Amino acid sequence: MAKKKNAFYAQSGGVTAVINASACGVIEAARKHSDVIGKVYAGRNGIIGALTEDLIDTSKESDEAIAALRYTPSGAFGSCRYKLKSLEANRREYERLIEVFKAHNIGYFFYNGGGDSADTCYKVSQLSEAMGYPIQAIHVPKTVDNDLPITDCCPGFGSVAKYIAVSTLEASYDVRSMARTSTKVFVIEVMGRHAGWIAAAGGLVAEQGIPVVILFPEIEFDQKAFLAKVDENVNKHGYCTVVVSEGCHYPDGKFLAEQGTRDAFGHAQLGGAAPVVANMIKDALGHKFHWAVADYLQRAARHIASKTDVKQAYELGRKAVELAVKGHNSVMPTIVRLSDTPYKYKLGMADLKDVANVEKFMPRDFISKDGFGITRKCRDYLTGLIQGEDYPKYADGLPVYVTLKNTPVAKKLPEFKL
Amino acid sequence: MAKKKNAFYAQSGGVTAVINASACGVIEAARKHSDVIGKVYAGRNGIIGALTEDLIDTSKESDEAIAALRYTPSGAFGSCRYKLKSLEANRREYERLIEVFKAHNIGYFFYNGGGDSADTCYKVSQLSEAMGYPIQAIHVPKTVDNDLPITDCCPGFGSVAKYIAVSTLEASYDVRSMARTSTKVFVIEVMGRHAGWIAAAGGLVAEQGIPVVILFPEIEFDQKAFLAKVDENVNKHGYCTVVVSEGCHYPDGKFLAEQGTRDAFGHAQLGGAAPVVANMIKDALGHKFHWAVADYLQRAARHIASKTDVKQAYELGRKAVELAVKGHNSVMPTIVRLSDTPYKYKLGMADLKDVANVEKFMPRDFISKDGFGITRKCRDYLTGLIQGEDYPKYADGLPVYVTLKNTPVAKKLPEFKL
Repeated sequence: MAKKKNAFYAQSGGVTAVINASACGVIEAARKHSDVIGKVYAGRNGIIGALTEDLIDTSKESDEAIAALRYTPSGAFGSCRYKLKSLEANRREYERLIEVFKAHNIGYFFYNGGGDSADTCYKVSQLSEAMGYPIQAIHVPKTVDNDLPITDCCPGFGSVAKYIAVSTLEASYDVRSMARTSTKVFVIEVMGRHAGWIAAAGGLVAEQGIPVVILFPEIEFDQKAFLAKVDENVNKHGYCTVVVSEGCHYPDGKFLAEQGTRDAFGHAQLGGAAPVVANMIKDALGHKFHWAVADYLQRAARHIASKTDVKQAYELGRKAVELAVKGHNSVMPTIVRLSDTPYKYKLGMADLKDVANVEKFMPRDFISKDGFGITRKCRDYLTGLIQGEDYPKYADGLPVYVTLKNTPVAKKLPEFKL
Repeated sequence: MAKKKNAFYAQSGGVTAVINASACGVIEAARKHSDVIGKVYAGRNGIIGALTEDLIDTSKESDEAIAALRYTPSGAFGSCRYKLKSLEANRREYERLIEVFKAHNIGYFFYNGGGDSADTCYKVSQLSEAMGYPIQAIHVPKTVDNDLPITDCCPGFGSVAKYIAVSTLEASYDVRSMARTSTKVFVIEVMGRHAGWIAAAGGLVAEQGIPVVILFPEIEFDQKAFLAKVDENVNKHGYCTVVVSEGCHYPDGKFLAEQGTRDAFGHAQLGGAAPVVANMIKDALGHKFHWAVADYLQRAARHIASKTDVKQAYELGRKAVELAVKGHNSVMPTIVRLSDTPYKYKLGMADLKDVANVEKFMPRDFISKDGFGITRKCRDYLTGLIQGEDYPKYADGLPVYVTLKNTPVAKKLPEFKL
């Protein structure tokens, strides 16, 4: 009993359709390892829950409720955008973490997030050495941006990729129907501030004969070449679909979405790369347009999640616990690709020091020579990740998602000001 | 053989996730009535296909391809936005229609569209009397706006309603996760120029405890009351979801989204109410926001179509043919609701003269007293329409949608300038 430690689990950064599947994997695995892991305390709103001693007792949730996490999008315990400063810059926060861990007998730290969160997790993993507190910190990868290094892909990405590919296909069929007398260009804006992985997923529809132009953050925006490409598609096919990444920018670094464009009445156009691109096309080429901004819809779309993605999210959560039980610290379970066709993978492990603060961009050979499409190599990479559907149950026409009780753990310490 | 006539079928206006299911119903039923109906010629791009003698021979499509229409969004034959002028104003077009009908032995006219299209169909139905050409014109209802009179609902609406309800639910879970340190208000813009039926579907999430504020076109926008309502929700729940209809407008009639461009019917082309509302909230209340504009994604989303909607779309297509075979002219098959819970309906019939140019708005008692939500009555109305899922097949992670061969019928007449 003396050696049995509780675990802390928290969700960080932008949530996804499958981050709760990882939570499910962590909690179900911890329940199986009840010989060495006591309770799983979840941080309410990520690491903030640890700092403010706002812990959730997941042992109060039934096995059924935890199993339902696998089908529920968003972060069941709340997430946060909060990056720990360095030990030198803010020793106070690390001391507080140790106080909270000590007070609640926490020996395992599972942090479920992207690049910034991997950095936080890495810092926590160093507490053993730096401050003499025995903690095993394991990072569970999650990010729709797919920009973590080492792992072949990140849970959350496959489902967004599937959503964007499906939506782009459906909207392209729509504009194709309308093009004779109405809309000729459809523009969809997708997430990805620095990396174009999500935008690339829109390129999968080209296989089905859809004329699609992709604007990646990795490729500096060339207005003239872009307009020529769109016009060529409209002339040849009668219509064109444009997938623009929110991170698409001019050579000087200015985002398309930052343009101070004005509408016909002289009102400032508010936000969004899609309306900027759509109006640019209208002004230069005269084509009628429609545009959509998917925003949260894309990353929350559990209803059309990739089965592969859900499975990997769950497995990486489970694997994180297994690594902890085996004594690992400062690591992240990873996806290791074995083959494209058929898609096969195994689980691996990376050192957190190699993960933290490294961003993985689209390789240049995943993007077509003209910069507006994806290559066969990219298609082969993406196709495995969007395989399979994993539908939630429905009642009264709506998906049945779980909202947990989120019972707080009694506080033992004085208040802490963030 | 002399009595056997060919049929003309065309799709009109904005396409939907299920208009092809109606096409499937029309063509399959016509194939069953091959004793009286010869071939079904589809108009390429709606009525324009009739005027320009650009006909598609659907008999060249296999039974399998026609059956696949049931699962394929968009308009398989192309749609158009083209409203016939009155007989007095443009006799030339009507004479041309008769020429084309005569040349191709067309005695049945099936027009699949919304309000403007019902008007076109009504005008064609009068050709018998006005110009002595024997034609039976049947309107097959279709519109995501759900604004046709007499019929209890319109095919296309149930699927958009389901998509918006599901997406609003998922995005609300997302913002709920993020609200502690980041986004507190999520705004989603939905279609509906004049009628708030689609926006109302977003209100279904309130049942699950989501704080949601709806902005209907039927309710004049009151900025002060709106901001107070949003702030109240954020203070009470930590976050708030806003569903804004593209048709939401100020008391003076000006749309929140007014862009200045107009479509072929002279309607203002809208889009962009969401960023306007989001920035308004940021400026007045300071809450962090995210916004999405679903645009075509919502009406093309066959992947999450309502099973009820798909079934009704098919049945109304089939019914249109049955009405024609029975000798009817100038009518539209309708949905007649029998009960809310459980949802039950039967098929009925309306006179086109009562349908054309009449718009059905949300009844005031479907909207809550404060104007920002839906009532129990509205919920009971909507719930039946989003029942059931009707998933397409998938291959390589993407839905399998059909693209028909669309073989042209040989032209027999001189060219016609639109």
